[in-house]
Amino acid sequence: MTRSRADAAPSWVWAPELGAAGRELDLEADESHYVSRVCRARPDDPLHLTDGRGRVARGVVLAIGPRVRVRVDEVQARPRTGSLELWCGAPEGERADWLVEKLAELGVARLVLLDTRRAAWQRAAGRLDRWQRLSVAALRQSQQAWRLEIAGPLALEPALEALGAGTRRLLAQPGGGALGAALAGAGDAVGVVGPSAGLHEDERERLRREDFLPIGLAPARLRAETAGVALAAGWAAWTLGAAGLDGPGGRP
Amino acid sequence: MTRSRADAAPSWVWAPELGAAGRELDLEADESHYVSRVCRARPDDPLHLTDGRGRVARGVVLAIGPRVRVRVDEVQARPRTGSLELWCGAPEGERADWLVEKLAELGVARLVLLDTRRAAWQRAAGRLDRWQRLSVAALRQSQQAWRLEIAGPLALEPALEALGAGTRRLLAQPGGGALGAALAGAGDAVGVVGPSAGLHEDERERLRREDFLPIGLAPARLRAETAGVALAAGWAAWTLGAAGLDGPGGRP
Repeated sequence: MTRSRADAAPSWVWAPELGAAGRELDLEADESHYVSRVCRARPDDPLHLTDGRGRVARGVVLAIGPRVRVRVDEVQARPRTGSLELWCGAPEGERADWLVEKLAELGVARLVLLDTRRAAWQRAAGRLDRWQRLSVAALRQSQQAWRLEIAGPLALEPALEALGAGTRRLLAQPGGGALGAALAGAGDAVGVVGPSAGLHEDERERLRREDFLPIGLAPARLRAETAGVALAAGWAAWTLGAAGLDGPGGRP
Repeated sequence: MTRSRADAAPSWVWAPELGAAGRELDLEADESHYVSRVCRARPDDPLHLTDGRGRVARGVVLAIGPRVRVRVDEVQARPRTGSLELWCGAPEGERADWLVEKLAELGVARLVLLDTRRAAWQRAAGRLDRWQRLSVAALRQSQQAWRLEIAGPLALEPALEALGAGTRRLLAQPGGGALGAALAGAGDAVGVVGPSAGLHEDERERLRREDFLPIGLAPARLRAETAGVALAAGWAAWTLGAAGLDGPGGRP
């Protein structure tokens, strides 16, 4: 989206190595393009920077070019109150693109590409770069301090082995219980969504033995990527409600 | 998705003029293709039909062809317990396609394409056919009895004039309250989501005067279409929870 300078808000860009106040750095190519071409920033314009790991800085544009040079002025930490990790089976076709974009917008901490008995993430290796770019674009768009991390593809057993003890465990499943009740009192949560062909009954049984609580997301069958986004949206709305935040959700 | 006959579930197809038990009818072209090519049905195979307005029938395939002939055997009504109508400002680019698909999957009753001061649904007329097909495809995919209705484009005042008195009114807005609390006790609800450029302050003020309750959907800014889907997902999850249903939500 190209906008006139008159109504332009300060750019919000990703700078993985943010450093401390006073540091000067060159933005990466995509970020530089965004600042110079989309936001049409000029030297001395203010901007925001984030490392995508909870640190946000005010800064200023020093020079426009293929690599935009900026100075970091003031750094703040924005801790998370809770996080959602989503283990998602492979959706059909190109549907993973918007799964990544929407999870990033909704503030999901981590997407684990889950290989299951009925479906593997066949083309993941060739698409990870694209998904990383989508997660950065969503970070800018949503002005977030935390970037969606993408991990895997991973099979169920290694994923379970890496799972922390205090995490609330949810399994999207027809006939499951209410999401709100399942999240009550939760800080960090992990949710599992099967692939388009569904989880195998052995996999569901394995997850139930590991205390994954079946939750229903809608009265109808959902595609894999819709279930993933629905779980993330329900979690985001629940998080706001539980925190009693007057946070900037929704769209003006 | 083409599947082998061995693991094929009975087709679930849209037949807008369902009629009564005993009736024979020819499916429309898209539905015929789905039954014969995707589900690879043959004569005497069972199938399900819905008119997309709450009636579902068991039926049987009589003949395969460009128009598949079926017989309606047994018709049941599936009443709604509550409905969500979403008034959505224009998102950017092609993003309306998946807005329509996801709202249909999540069981939203009606999408109103809302023309606002900052954005009109410029290309809606040429895309309504495509969106209607997407809503039918989602009906099949989700095996629903109710089809997403798409109305508009409509300006705010005519939309408000047509609004019923008993409907819970929600406005997605940064800093708004919790969705769950706003929905408590609601049957039918209407939610408003601004366009990508946001609602004008006069429009927000007008909606607040009409008792639209500001609700927050996520801790970060959301794109218009993400806010629409997040509101629908939150509503769907809340509906299941409120009804205490063991309904088929999520993905096995």
